[in-house]
Amino acid sequence: MEKPKVRLYVDQPLGAGQAVALGPEAANYLFNVMRLARGAHVALFNGRDGEWQAEVVEAGKRQGIAVCQTETAPQVMPPDLWLMFTPVKKDRTAFIVEKAVELGVARLMPVATRHMNSERWRVDKQTAHAVEAAEQCGATFVPKVDDLQPLDRVLSQWPEGRALYWADETLAKGSSTPAAVIAGPAAILIGPEGGFSEEEKTRLRALPFVRPLALGPRILRAETAALAALVLWQSTVGDWQ
Amino acid sequence: MEKPKVRLYVDQPLGAGQAVALGPEAANYLFNVMRLARGAHVALFNGRDGEWQAEVVEAGKRQGIAVCQTETAPQVMPPDLWLMFTPVKKDRTAFIVEKAVELGVARLMPVATRHMNSERWRVDKQTAHAVEAAEQCGATFVPKVDDLQPLDRVLSQWPEGRALYWADETLAKGSSTPAAVIAGPAAILIGPEGGFSEEEKTRLRALPFVRPLALGPRILRAETAALAALVLWQSTVGDWQ
Repeated sequence: MEKPKVRLYVDQPLGAGQAVALGPEAANYLFNVMRLARGAHVALFNGRDGEWQAEVVEAGKRQGIAVCQTETAPQVMPPDLWLMFTPVKKDRTAFIVEKAVELGVARLMPVATRHMNSERWRVDKQTAHAVEAAEQCGATFVPKVDDLQPLDRVLSQWPEGRALYWADETLAKGSSTPAAVIAGPAAILIGPEGGFSEEEKTRLRALPFVRPLALGPRILRAETAALAALVLWQSTVGDWQ
Repeated sequence: MEKPKVRLYVDQPLGAGQAVALGPEAANYLFNVMRLARGAHVALFNGRDGEWQAEVVEAGKRQGIAVCQTETAPQVMPPDLWLMFTPVKKDRTAFIVEKAVELGVARLMPVATRHMNSERWRVDKQTAHAVEAAEQCGATFVPKVDDLQPLDRVLSQWPEGRALYWADETLAKGSSTPAAVIAGPAAILIGPEGGFSEEEKTRLRALPFVRPLALGPRILRAETAALAALVLWQSTVGDWQ
């Protein structure tokens, strides 16, 4: 059996013999853009039931139906890692979302900080980016995408037992010491292009759950820092081991 | 003394009292775009003499002169790491170049492979991207940017004593074992979006200097794989330690 060319996220239950309704957007993509017809196979996942090979049994202009046949990959959840970051320019924010899914995070938490370059954050649009990245990279999950929240509030309500890795830029200058990456629930915090304010930095340094992370001697852009921190965490204690 | 707002690469000698001619492009950027005037300070680097604070002594429409005053950062060369990759789509290629400079590489080597998506590679344009990234991230070097070369030829002329890290996708499936990252001259090889051909993979697996690198269980896009591999190398044996 040939491997399906298309991999699609659907928000519906999947299982042996389960029929899946394909809405206008999916129908357009599958039957107009990708030119699939009745009898074609697609790979489906929904973030909880694994990946299934399904056969198209109805292929209409505005809707269709696919029936699940065999499970092609088990459900695999990402490690318990959150990525907290301040929205940057549009393209670079989309990039952070896409790369975070590929590298593997459970939750995307945009935070509002003092020197924020953009307040633009639409959960629906960013979720669509995350879904697209998951379809592309073979993940069976899609991270939870939060609303924008003030950093202060997030820090005040910090859950017990979760480490917060923060790339304090003074580390690059060698004036403070990085902490080791340890196993357990974690979050990574990346600042805005303009950096954190002095008040924010003072607060972060005083919090017991904050662990400084070293990201080398150069000044990384926000999106580069996000990726680098994710790679370090994943390769040390995450699902890359 | 206030820290200069502008950091500029110049291809001229730098040193105490050294006058630096600013051409039409630099003059336009400094005096029109950034609205600097005579007496302003700029940070200059040339990839070999460190970073210098210079004072603008002439600010014309099409040219100017700055005089070096004090060395503000020593010359720091990147580790002996090459990044070999196949050009992808325009934006994503620009992204690889930008991020490689931030993360730190000595040489950018585009290689032509069987399943190449794009043959577009202009050394002058990509060098300009690399220069811009170096200006932004505080690096005092700019990596060497090569012409596009066939992968086969590069492999045939491989220098002795240099390890080649390759993210073989079969590693993600757990069917082969990754090698450890070791100190010494190195190169990272990232394939095109379509992956390497069977012939290319067979050849790579047989070469004694090729070391497989594991980049987690998901399928990374070419640019994500490039970044992830650079972060792993830099944090293990590079200048992030």
